[in-house]
Amino acid sequence: MKKFVQNEEFQLGVCYYPEHWPEELWADDYRRMKEMHFSTVRLAEFAWAIFEPSEGEFSFELFDRAIDLAHEHGLKVVLGTPTATPPAWLTHKYPEVLNSTQEGVQFQHGLRRHYNYNAEIYHQFSARIVRKMVEHYRNHPAVIGWQLDNEFNCEVDVFYSDADHKAFQNWVKKKYETLDNVNQAWGTVFWSQTYTSWEQIHLPRPNPSQSQNPHLALDEKRFISDSTIAYAKLQADIIREVAPHQWITTNGLYGHIDNHQMTEDLLDFFAYDSYPNFSTIFPDKGKNPLLDRKWGWNLSNVRSVSSTFGVFEQQSGPGGWVNRMQQPSPKPGQMRLWTYQSIAHGADMLLYFRWRTATMGTETYWHGINDYHNQPNRRVDEAKTIGRELNQIGNDLLGAEYQAEVAIVRDYDNEWDGELDLWHGPFSDRSNTAWFKALQYSHVPSDVAYINDHTTLADLNQYTTLIYPHPAIMTERTSELLEAFVKAGGNVIFGCRTGYKDKTGQCYMKPFPGVVSELCGVTVDEFSLHNAEHPAPSVKTRVGTFQSDGFSEVLQVQSENAEVIGSYSESHVVGKPALVKNSVGNGTVYYFGGVFTEESASFLLEELQITSPVESWLVLPQKVELAIRKDQNGKEFIFLLNYSDSEQTIQVKNMRTNLLTGEALQGEVVMEPYGVVIL
Amino acid sequence: MKKFVQNEEFQLGVCYYPEHWPEELWADDYRRMKEMHFSTVRLAEFAWAIFEPSEGEFSFELFDRAIDLAHEHGLKVVLGTPTATPPAWLTHKYPEVLNSTQEGVQFQHGLRRHYNYNAEIYHQFSARIVRKMVEHYRNHPAVIGWQLDNEFNCEVDVFYSDADHKAFQNWVKKKYETLDNVNQAWGTVFWSQTYTSWEQIHLPRPNPSQSQNPHLALDEKRFISDSTIAYAKLQADIIREVAPHQWITTNGLYGHIDNHQMTEDLLDFFAYDSYPNFSTIFPDKGKNPLLDRKWGWNLSNVRSVSSTFGVFEQQSGPGGWVNRMQQPSPKPGQMRLWTYQSIAHGADMLLYFRWRTATMGTETYWHGINDYHNQPNRRVDEAKTIGRELNQIGNDLLGAEYQAEVAIVRDYDNEWDGELDLWHGPFSDRSNTAWFKALQYSHVPSDVAYINDHTTLADLNQYTTLIYPHPAIMTERTSELLEAFVKAGGNVIFGCRTGYKDKTGQCYMKPFPGVVSELCGVTVDEFSLHNAEHPAPSVKTRVGTFQSDGFSEVLQVQSENAEVIGSYSESHVVGKPALVKNSVGNGTVYYFGGVFTEESASFLLEELQITSPVESWLVLPQKVELAIRKDQNGKEFIFLLNYSDSEQTIQVKNMRTNLLTGEALQGEVVMEPYGVVIL
Amino acid sequence: MKKFVQNEEFQLGVCYYPEHWPEELWADDYRRMKEMHFSTVRLAEFAWAIFEPSEGEFSFELFDRAIDLAHEHGLKVVLGTPTATPPAWLTHKYPEVLNSTQEGVQFQHGLRRHYNYNAEIYHQFSARIVRKMVEHYRNHPAVIGWQLDNEFNCEVDVFYSDADHKAFQNWVKKKYETLDNVNQAWGTVFWSQTYTSWEQIHLPRPNPSQSQNPHLALDEKRFISDSTIAYAKLQADIIREVAPHQWITTNGLYGHIDNHQMTEDLLDFFAYDSYPNFSTIFPDKGKNPLLDRKWGWNLSNVRSVSSTFGVFEQQSGPGGWVNRMQQPSPKPGQMRLWTYQSIAHGADMLLYFRWRTATMGTETYWHGINDYHNQPNRRVDEAKTIGRELNQIGNDLLGAEYQAEVAIVRDYDNEWDGELDLWHGPFSDRSNTAWFKALQYSHVPSDVAYINDHTTLADLNQYTTLIYPHPAIMTERTSELLEAFVKAGGNVIFGCRTGYKDKTGQCYMKPFPGVVSELCGVTVDEFSLHNAEHPAPSVKTRVGTFQSDGFSEVLQVQSENAEVIGSYSESHVVGKPALVKNSVGNGTVYYFGGVFTEESASFLLEELQITSPVESWLVLPQKVELAIRKDQNGKEFIFLLNYSDSEQTIQVKNMRTNLLTGEALQGEVVMEPYGVVIL
Repeated sequence: MKKFVQNEEFQLGVCYYPEHWPEELWADDYRRMKEMHFSTVRLAEFAWAIFEPSEGEFSFELFDRAIDLAHEHGLKVVLGTPTATPPAWLTHKYPEVLNSTQEGVQFQHGLRRHYNYNAEIYHQFSARIVRKMVEHYRNHPAVIGWQLDNEFNCEVDVFYSDADHKAFQNWVKKKYETLDNVNQAWGTVFWSQTYTSWEQIHLPRPNPSQSQNPHLALDEKRFISDSTIAYAKLQADIIREVAPHQWITTNGLYGHIDNHQMTEDLLDFFAYDSYPNFSTIFPDKGKNPLLDRKWGWNLSNVRSVSSTFGVFEQQSGPGGWVNRMQQPSPKPGQMRLWTYQSIAHGADMLLYFRWRTATMGTETYWHGINDYHNQPNRRVDEAKTIGRELNQIGNDLLGAEYQAEVAIVRDYDNEWDGELDLWHGPFSDRSNTAWFKALQYSHVPSDVAYINDHTTLADLNQYTTLIYPHPAIMTERTSELLEAFVKAGGNVIFGCRTGYKDKTGQCYMKPFPGVVSELCGVTVDEFSLHNAEHPAPSVKTRVGTFQSDGFSEVLQVQSENAEVIGSYSESHVVGKPALVKNSVGNGTVYYFGGVFTEESASFLLEELQITSPVESWLVLPQKVELAIRKDQNGKEFIFLLNYSDSEQTIQVKNMRTNLLTGEALQGEVVMEPYGVVIL
Repeated sequence: MKKFVQNEEFQLGVCYYPEHWPEELWADDYRRMKEMHFSTVRLAEFAWAIFEPSEGEFSFELFDRAIDLAHEHGLKVVLGTPTATPPAWLTHKYPEVLNSTQEGVQFQHGLRRHYNYNAEIYHQFSARIVRKMVEHYRNHPAVIGWQLDNEFNCEVDVFYSDADHKAFQNWVKKKYETLDNVNQAWGTVFWSQTYTSWEQIHLPRPNPSQSQNPHLALDEKRFISDSTIAYAKLQADIIREVAPHQWITTNGLYGHIDNHQMTEDLLDFFAYDSYPNFSTIFPDKGKNPLLDRKWGWNLSNVRSVSSTFGVFEQQSGPGGWVNRMQQPSPKPGQMRLWTYQSIAHGADMLLYFRWRTATMGTETYWHGINDYHNQPNRRVDEAKTIGRELNQIGNDLLGAEYQAEVAIVRDYDNEWDGELDLWHGPFSDRSNTAWFKALQYSHVPSDVAYINDHTTLADLNQYTTLIYPHPAIMTERTSELLEAFVKAGGNVIFGCRTGYKDKTGQCYMKPFPGVVSELCGVTVDEFSLHNAEHPAPSVKTRVGTFQSDGFSEVLQVQSENAEVIGSYSESHVVGKPALVKNSVGNGTVYYFGGVFTEESASFLLEELQITSPVESWLVLPQKVELAIRKDQNGKEFIFLLNYSDSEQTIQVKNMRTNLLTGEALQGEVVMEPYGVVIL
Repeated sequence: MKKFVQNEEFQLGVCYYPEHWPEELWADDYRRMKEMHFSTVRLAEFAWAIFEPSEGEFSFELFDRAIDLAHEHGLKVVLGTPTATPPAWLTHKYPEVLNSTQEGVQFQHGLRRHYNYNAEIYHQFSARIVRKMVEHYRNHPAVIGWQLDNEFNCEVDVFYSDADHKAFQNWVKKKYETLDNVNQAWGTVFWSQTYTSWEQIHLPRPNPSQSQNPHLALDEKRFISDSTIAYAKLQADIIREVAPHQWITTNGLYGHIDNHQMTEDLLDFFAYDSYPNFSTIFPDKGKNPLLDRKWGWNLSNVRSVSSTFGVFEQQSGPGGWVNRMQQPSPKPGQMRLWTYQSIAHGADMLLYFRWRTATMGTETYWHGINDYHNQPNRRVDEAKTIGRELNQIGNDLLGAEYQAEVAIVRDYDNEWDGELDLWHGPFSDRSNTAWFKALQYSHVPSDVAYINDHTTLADLNQYTTLIYPHPAIMTERTSELLEAFVKAGGNVIFGCRTGYKDKTGQCYMKPFPGVVSELCGVTVDEFSLHNAEHPAPSVKTRVGTFQSDGFSEVLQVQSENAEVIGSYSESHVVGKPALVKNSVGNGTVYYFGGVFTEESASFLLEELQITSPVESWLVLPQKVELAIRKDQNGKEFIFLLNYSDSEQTIQVKNMRTNLLTGEALQGEVVMEPYGVVIL
């Protein structure tokens, strides 16, 4: 079922923590929010100690006053369930709810996310606080929806408490039914690992070998995802039961959760927390880095979960904890740019983090719109501008969908398997970045498409081209699905290491690329890993030469319809095929025996004649992103986003109106640094 | 109360370990010490297993013989209490005395400093061994004083045993009285951290978030300091009671101790262990590094505790453990240079570490004056020279005080808060080094002045200029004190991040620089962190341009008496104020919105017209340090120290005598490599 | 007793895991092995869970069928005892058999080598499974020998379980008899470490000081070696008792085992696992790196244990675990090159690792000869070529011994002491590599000679020259042995840090080089560590200048027969002796006060006029290795190995036949890339 934001109006707003501030500030805060055209506040997601100050004693006074006052000011309220931060009394009395390191060091009270998903007693306490809150606020006219917990699997996405080990045993038992099946799936005959009773089974534990059984390690991630979703379901079920008229979502994009399944099963739509200035401390590597523009990639992933979505924390100032993640301040205009980046990619609800910078605690430097001093500043001004603009055009955008004919394909199995497996795992990120960069710089809007056992041909057929860089794990089902897609006229692009593993992560006894060998029209003759000291041989095509990266496969053509369009140009593999194009039915498959770079991706875009959808009338410089949303009535919104700190000149051949200003644009138009235009 | 060395003569000597050597060597060792004009030996600080070979059994024979023999040779003796190294039988039987890692891994017997300060039973054992020793040696004519323990908080300066967690609970209870006060001070409303019973309170424990509650983390350091001092007091009280005629000190300059408070409360004077060749493995960063000359900074810190002080371990050879801290050998002359460096900065007692290099154990490569082979070597010769020189001039220097009109201001709160808080913490070290370097290279002697709740205006008024680079924590009291200092004609220089936090480490709801905004005549409009990839904008003044470093604040002038003397010269802040001078009463305040470099510090020295006090008659090259001590009668000793491996030429306009040689100096005088002159 | 491979024919073969594959593949696998002229398979070394699926229940069916079928195909079988991988039921029920980290974190089931050598119950289980297997297979006609366990001390070579601490106490008690002796040997008077009861004694445990008592740390390694050998003996004794007609060996070259003692006491010959492509991820540092050619060094070490030896795992494809040790693929020809590298250095039995790449588990990327797909590939072809060649010449080589007149001397005491002691430890590896490189590039075949308390003058007299770079620990016995060797006409070369420690690792109270000072004719006047920022002074000889590395000693000549042949040419030591040649009896001793580089080693080779033994008729380029084996009848086999990826031209002045091709060679002969010639 397609997931989308359930509000009737575009929601702009802010995260607010009334419990952090003297009550006399609240009314002024709300008043100024309204002045900025904010409609919504998110409250309460870390306030368990306020709602339940001691075991079984509940208190709603503070938030009743805060929510009533918000309502008086005409603000809507989203409530977070407060389970990310259990109170001190809880973890002190019931330490079995705490998570541990793999070595068995128990995490303790003091920060957040120190609990585990599998302790029965934590389920009981969580269910009770959620039920109490929902029952209390189900009829409040301001409350429109719920955020489950906060950022599941942020901080830590592995779990090794006793409760987790025990739950894993049960999960394995349920999945495999017999120990023979477990031993088969995990290849335990290797190194005498065979299990002969259920209680011998554990999540990975310390060993002298700096490694893990890879098949167990893959199931570990599936188990964590299932544990997280089961814990979320506990909360979601209560909300659905008690307050079916209020929507449910959660926020974040963290490890070891199948967000697609969670959203499908439990949520109305998905939400994300967007901090593009992380790019200043963790920039993407390589030439022409995308930096904050890379957040379009993250938002594309969010969009694959939920066609329109919420951004529940949109960066509004410098970010950082007292001791890490130290981000420079956003430049003038970047807060607005990033807001429209989120919206261009499908956000129909957007809350800034946060109203005012906290004066205490770990996040003292995770700055909000207002400074500690609470007086006017540049960010307040920028928020006002945005509020005014979205007040005019926000509702028009509502429900309009991002337009893309190309998708980069991902799946959870390969990403989880690839965390341990360095012979394919690291390649996906490099190829995805290379492709996203090539697509961005060519002004070709693109989606991310997740593929799994429920994916249908119809899901794929909305695209003309699928780029699936390194699906080492490839089931027969997926292979058949892709074949059907190609035969019907689609293009599929694979990179090295495709198709050689089954669902358990074991290798097929087939020539590479395994189950898609016939589809690709090639087999792999030989291959090698490469590193900086042993670089991969370069590849020559009709138009020039590009580097592979990290891996090289020598291909052998196995089909009459296959054509070699790139060959190695050095070392002992000189002249041998590196890139093969295979015609199948009405479509085409490209197989490249390497990891993609911006250059090889650009070459393939050219091969496939994939260009900007507005090429005929709009000429854009590389620094400007193009994104298009289209509503039910076919009306298009063309977003142009300038990520550079200098002016950029675009050329508009057919006159259009800038919806943000009402100004008619034609000919050479100058966009200001960090500027935004919506046509 | 002013602290100073309590001896009647200048003491030169050496650390000696009779227990390490065959008894037949002792007499020859003592004889040769006397030949070198050594007057003092330090003994016994690691000898607990000898004094108390099993629980409750005491033995003084070995040290009685060693001390009697020292006395016969005319040597004075300083005794260390041996508590840094509890015997094996003690920690084996009473493991609760051991310290632990934060994760709960208990340290064990085998090296040193593995105990904690809060185990009751360790207090009892420590009190007993100290009392036994003091009672035994109180009347020995050779024994002049005591060193408490050895290098408190060396090796490790955090403590996580059960005894420490428990003691912290009590410390918090005593400090805050109510849980409400604790919750307020630590901002526990943030992330639901509220404490509802005392037993929930712990020192920081493992968590999944790589951080800590910053206010608790600040109190943790205060608690460690208090624990250390309480433990030291236990010993000091016994010595005062039993042997009030013998002085008390301790040695070192390590983390998480308020040495000023400890010295004020317990000690007669403070002592330091000086190893300038650590500079070969941990050089100060940047252009023109100070290297071993940086030890003048350390000695200035020691001098802020104790106007004259002891150096209880002065480097006499290459240093290093078997497995780390591998230092190259000092060059010929450096041992002498460093001796006079200590003395120039205020040492009135100086013991070399150590008589002879140990042939066994972890410190086999922490070389002493004598080699394993015990035959003449270069270091023995150098020690003889020094002994001869100090025999002539040492007593003249006694009590003479280092002269400085400029002080760099420090305080414990900001340094402890800054350990976790990377948004101001790392700046102090960089600015302090920059200032010390600029002062050194301008031949302007400087002090370090620690400021706290007991500091008086009189304490400050001995200086004309105070440099207080980044006091994020700034109380009203300190602010008022500095204001009074300025009004009376003093100069104060601040850098970025000044004045925005209160004593708990929480932020004021005021525009930066918070409580000193009025004093500085500015507020901060906006700011940014910077790093290598996002460098700070450069600053332009009337004389040129310099770089900020790490941080930039855009200032807004708020006072008629304030004048912009430096502005940003690039990026979106171009032209905006970076450096403002404000006239207040008879004095001046400079506020710089960045971290200091040698260039910006030099610019401000020039602004303030601060120059060498002997500029009129003595021209010194950059490589030569100037230091001046003045005795009660106003007699000045002018130390010139050449830190370079090449000759340096100084120009003496008025004839003076080199006190080390009796030679009259005038005109161009050549100092040898690593040479020393005292005028 | 000289150890050598006990087979009557040269054995070529492969490691095979029938338990990993469908039984229907076995016959085809064996058939193809025979086609390749393979004669031997190694089986079963990780199959405990198959032999003993539950406690006390034994099952031999699977391996009976696999071994019978091998026999039917004419293959010999080597069996591994399976103790490297205890079954899950064992470690689950008896966790005391598990090894731990120093911090006490217990390793757990899941990979391999997680057991300890000292748990009594593991001894019982190990003895039983070994006895069961040997009794079962003692009379099988295919089974020729046994491999004990697999790669002792691979993965982890330290042990901290309770059983290990306890065993260490007993080991110490047995070695030292009294606590006084222990305290003396470990220098426990330093830092009050004195032990007063046996139960206070432990293996190194956590402490706050990042170090250990160095003498205890040395004994720790001796204890680990003894524990390993005692555990191996438990197995070897059973095999000797039950199947005295089958030989015994083990494979590997790992830390903390005296392989010489183990081989002498327990084994018929020693075996090694050779993976030269580790050089692609851990290349040797410096100019002209040896890379895969460095494996000649490893093989020389193996040869010092066993004059002919087995290679039980010879690299046949890319190697790597799923998560680390990622090696590029060998180039065409390298598998053959490395095979002959092993044989040239003394291998008389060689098994490839492995028949077919595993499709599951941690070693999915430790590729075998066959790929997952089991179809022809380049490596299969290369194996066929090798099989054909060795089928012709393998038996001729059997028992022929590698010829060398120069040996690099090593000993376990210095290597184990040097692990902790950074003031001499790291120098050996650098000097050994420098010397091996200089010898290789000069085409001077060399041995490694281990020296210990059993070494005799006869052992040394097979060499003309001994290079013993940095023997810090030097006993009187060894010193006398070397003196006798020199007096009889031998040459000995020492580097810095020689001779200053006794067997406990404590320093002699003598001038350096301690007990060999007279032999060397020098004492050390002063010395210094050096690092990149403080480089060692260069050394000038009659032919030029070379760098020392890491350390410099200023020498003083103490003998009339000593001559300074190298002096420092800079810094304050300029002109002082650095390299001294001393004539003693009929021989010569060289003492160099530094760490060796290729340049200083080459200079000394020239000094000693050591050149290629075939210089008169064979001119070789640097890239080609020369190795010579000579059989009982004096017949020489001259191996030429081209390690480069380009052709290399050799010049053969006297006509010879290439034994691999039968071709007569004279004049300029071109070797192909990675080519091999045997004359």
